[in-house]
Amino acid sequence: MEARVCVVVGVGPGLGEALARTFSTEGYRVALLSRREQKLAALASELDGVAVACDATDPASIRAALAEVRRRLGPVHTLLWNVGSAVWGDLDTVDEDGMELAWRTNALGLFAAAKAAVADMRAAGEGAIIVTGATASRRGKPLTTAFAAGKAAQRSLCQSLARQLWPEGVHVALMIIDAGVGPRGGDDPGKLDPDHAARTAFYLTQQPRSAWTFELELRPHVERW
Amino acid sequence: MEARVCVVVGVGPGLGEALARTFSTEGYRVALLSRREQKLAALASELDGVAVACDATDPASIRAALAEVRRRLGPVHTLLWNVGSAVWGDLDTVDEDGMELAWRTNALGLFAAAKAAVADMRAAGEGAIIVTGATASRRGKPLTTAFAAGKAAQRSLCQSLARQLWPEGVHVALMIIDAGVGPRGGDDPGKLDPDHAARTAFYLTQQPRSAWTFELELRPHVERW
Amino acid sequence: MEARVCVVVGVGPGLGEALARTFSTEGYRVALLSRREQKLAALASELDGVAVACDATDPASIRAALAEVRRRLGPVHTLLWNVGSAVWGDLDTVDEDGMELAWRTNALGLFAAAKAAVADMRAAGEGAIIVTGATASRRGKPLTTAFAAGKAAQRSLCQSLARQLWPEGVHVALMIIDAGVGPRGGDDPGKLDPDHAARTAFYLTQQPRSAWTFELELRPHVERW
Amino acid sequence: MEARVCVVVGVGPGLGEALARTFSTEGYRVALLSRREQKLAALASELDGVAVACDATDPASIRAALAEVRRRLGPVHTLLWNVGSAVWGDLDTVDEDGMELAWRTNALGLFAAAKAAVADMRAAGEGAIIVTGATASRRGKPLTTAFAAGKAAQRSLCQSLARQLWPEGVHVALMIIDAGVGPRGGDDPGKLDPDHAARTAFYLTQQPRSAWTFELELRPHVERW
Repeated sequence: MEARVCVVVGVGPGLGEALARTFSTEGYRVALLSRREQKLAALASELDGVAVACDATDPASIRAALAEVRRRLGPVHTLLWNVGSAVWGDLDTVDEDGMELAWRTNALGLFAAAKAAVADMRAAGEGAIIVTGATASRRGKPLTTAFAAGKAAQRSLCQSLARQLWPEGVHVALMIIDAGVGPRGGDDPGKLDPDHAARTAFYLTQQPRSAWTFELELRPHVERW
Repeated sequence: MEARVCVVVGVGPGLGEALARTFSTEGYRVALLSRREQKLAALASELDGVAVACDATDPASIRAALAEVRRRLGPVHTLLWNVGSAVWGDLDTVDEDGMELAWRTNALGLFAAAKAAVADMRAAGEGAIIVTGATASRRGKPLTTAFAAGKAAQRSLCQSLARQLWPEGVHVALMIIDAGVGPRGGDDPGKLDPDHAARTAFYLTQQPRSAWTFELELRPHVERW
Repeated sequence: MEARVCVVVGVGPGLGEALARTFSTEGYRVALLSRREQKLAALASELDGVAVACDATDPASIRAALAEVRRRLGPVHTLLWNVGSAVWGDLDTVDEDGMELAWRTNALGLFAAAKAAVADMRAAGEGAIIVTGATASRRGKPLTTAFAAGKAAQRSLCQSLARQLWPEGVHVALMIIDAGVGPRGGDDPGKLDPDHAARTAFYLTQQPRSAWTFELELRPHVERW
Repeated sequence: MEARVCVVVGVGPGLGEALARTFSTEGYRVALLSRREQKLAALASELDGVAVACDATDPASIRAALAEVRRRLGPVHTLLWNVGSAVWGDLDTVDEDGMELAWRTNALGLFAAAKAAVADMRAAGEGAIIVTGATASRRGKPLTTAFAAGKAAQRSLCQSLARQLWPEGVHVALMIIDAGVGPRGGDDPGKLDPDHAARTAFYLTQQPRSAWTFELELRPHVERW
C-alpha cells in the first residue's frame, strides 16, 4: 500500500518540524512547504520526504507547490496549515501591508491550499485539513490588530470548510495553541512542547468518522487563561 | 456650536439610508460615502449633507474621501461602517477575488477608515465607530466561506480597536444584524426595519462613558435563532 | 391609561435602586422586591410604588410576592431580575450550600418569577424580562466556582426563555455588567454608574419588535477586558 | 504497580458502558456508579471492577459511593462524570423539580464528586476529571429550558475547576457530545458511536502536561451544526 501523503505548510523549528516528524514516524510521506525550502533539505532527507518552495501568501505559489508534491509523492491526503506570521502592532503601528500579510498567511493561503488539495481527498473519499490556530483566533487585542483579524478569518473559514467537507469524508479541524511554544523536549513547564501538540494533531486525523472534533485548544497545565 | 460630523460608509436603500436619516435628524451633519455617489446626491441634499465617492475596498480612496469630508464639513466625529458585500459561495464556487473582496469591504477598509478618522476623534477627545455586523460575524457556513471570513476578521478588528480606543474616548461597537433587512417602515414581522436598527446604532453613540456596550445583536422578535 | 407595572427583584443601593428610579421616572409603577422590604419603604414611597417582601431563592415566596404586586398595582408588564449573591470561593472553600444559593438566586428564582409573571404578559400581548448578568455569566474562574455556575445557568435560561417568549411579544434580554458598580453619579471613571446601566435596561424595553437585542455587555470605557 | 482507579458516574448502555470498557481495556480498575447498581453487576464482573450504588443528585450519596470505591479499589485517579438527565420542556411544561434535577445531575453532583475525589488526586500529584457535555452546554432552547441551564452551569463549573486544578496536575476537561448517540458498533452514520467518544475521553487523560485540552466537541461527520 502506498503511504499517505501529508503536506506541512509552514515548517519552522517548532511546531512545523514536530508535525513533520510525527506524521513521518506514523508512516506518512511528508512534504515540507516553506518560503526557504533549502533550510528544510536536511529534515526532508532525514524523513525521506520532500522540501518544496512555497510562498504561503501567494495562491499561485501554493498551487504550484501542491502540484509538485503530487508529482513527486502522489495525491495529498492530509494538509497541515501551520503558517505563522509575525505581525504585531496596534492601529497606529500596523499598516495595510501588515493587515494584508496576516490575512493572506492565515486565511487566503489556507483557502487556496484547500481548494488545490480537496480534489485528491475527494477522489480518495477521505482526507484531513488540520489548522494551527492561536489565542488570537478567539479574540482581538490592540497588539494583535492585524494578527487576530487574520486568525479570526481563518477560524471562520475552517468552520465553513468543515461544514462543507466533513460529509465528504474530509476532516477539517482547528487546533488552537493557547500558549508560548517551547523547544521540542524542553523542560519549561510554562511552554508547550511542540511534539505534544503534534501528537494531538495526529490524533485528530485518526478519529473515526462517527466522532469527529472540530475545535480544541492546547495549553500547558500551568498556563493562566 | 458646530454640528458633529457623521460619516456613513456604505449607503444603500436599507440600513445605510436609515443611519443617515437618523443621525441627521439627531443634529449631525452627515457625509454619505459610496462607490456611486451620484445616486446619493438627492439624499445628501435632502439631509443637508454631502455625498462623496469612495471605494471601500481601496484604502487610498477611503483616505481621499475622508479628507474631502473634513474639508467640506469639518473633523469626523462618528464613523458608521456599513459596507456590504454580496459574496456568496462555498469552497468550489468562491474564488480568491471573492475572498479578497469580502476581506477588504469588511476588515481592511474599516482598518483604513479608522486609521484615517481617529486623529479627529483624538483631537476632540471623543468619537464613535459603529460597525454593522451580520450573523456571519459569529460563524462560518459553506455558503458564507468568503463573507463570514471577512465578517469574522471585522469582528476581531473591532475588538482590537475597542480595547485600544475606548480609553481614549472613542466608542467602538459592533451591531450584529441577525436577520433579513426589510424596507424602512415595512410591515413584514420577519424583517428587520432599518430605522429601528439605526435607532440602536444612535443609542450606542449616546451611552455615557461609564457604561459602554461593545457588541449586541438585533433581530425581529419572531426570528428563529 | 393605566401605568405599566415594573417589578424589580433585588433592590440594593446600586443598580436595583437605579432601575427602580429610572422606570419610575419613565412612568412605570414600580414594585420593589427584596428579602428586607422595610429597607425599601422610603424608596417605594418616594417613587409612589410598593415594597414587597420576597426571598428570591424560594419559588413559593416569589409567587406570593408577585401575587401581592398584582393585587396592589395590577398585572406585571416588566420584570427586572437583578438579584445578587455574594458567593465567592473555589472548590475547597465553597460548599454545597453556596452552590445551591448561587443557583437559586440566579437561575431557579428567575425561572419561578418568569413562570409566575408570563401570564400577565401574554394577556397583554407584550412584556419584558431584563436580567442582570455579570462577567461570570460568560466564564468560570476558581473564585467564582459557585457564582459563575449560577450565572451561566441564568444566561442559558435567558436564551431558552427568549427563544420561547419573543414570538409572543415578551422581550427577554440579558445585560451583562462587566465591571465594578460604583455609586449613582459617582466620578470614578473605573466604576460603572448604575444610572447609566439602568438607562440601557430601559432602552432595551423600548426597542421596537423588528429589532430586539438579546444580549449586550456594559463596562466603563477605561475598563480592561 | 497498582492499576489506576477510574470512576464512571452514570453508566447506561451507551457512553457510560463504553467509557468503562475503554478504561478497563487500557488497564484501569473501574468503578461503576449508578442509581441501580444491580444492573451493572454483570458488567462490573466482566471488567473485574466494582458496581456501587450512587444517587448522583445527592452529595451525601456521592461521598459515600466514592468512599466505598476507595475502600474496595484504592484512591481515585480518574473521574468520568457522565450523568444524564432526561428533563425536557419549556417554561410552561417544566417545573421547579425538573430545574433542580437538571442542576443537580449536571452541576451540583459533579461539584460534590470533584470535592470528594480531589484529595486522592492531589496526594498522587495527578488525576483527571472528564465531563460529558452536550449541545445544550453551549446554548439554551425552549425545550432545554432546564437541561441547558444545568449543562451551562456544568460547563462553567468545569472551567472553574480546570483553572484551579490544572496547575496541581489534575486534568479537568469537557467533552461535548453534539449528536445523538447510537449503539456501540452501530452502523448509522448519523449516530455517534460511544466507543469512539470513549476513545477521545481516554486520549484526553493521556495528553502530556505541556499540551492539555480543556474543551472539544464530538459529532458524526455527517451531522449538521
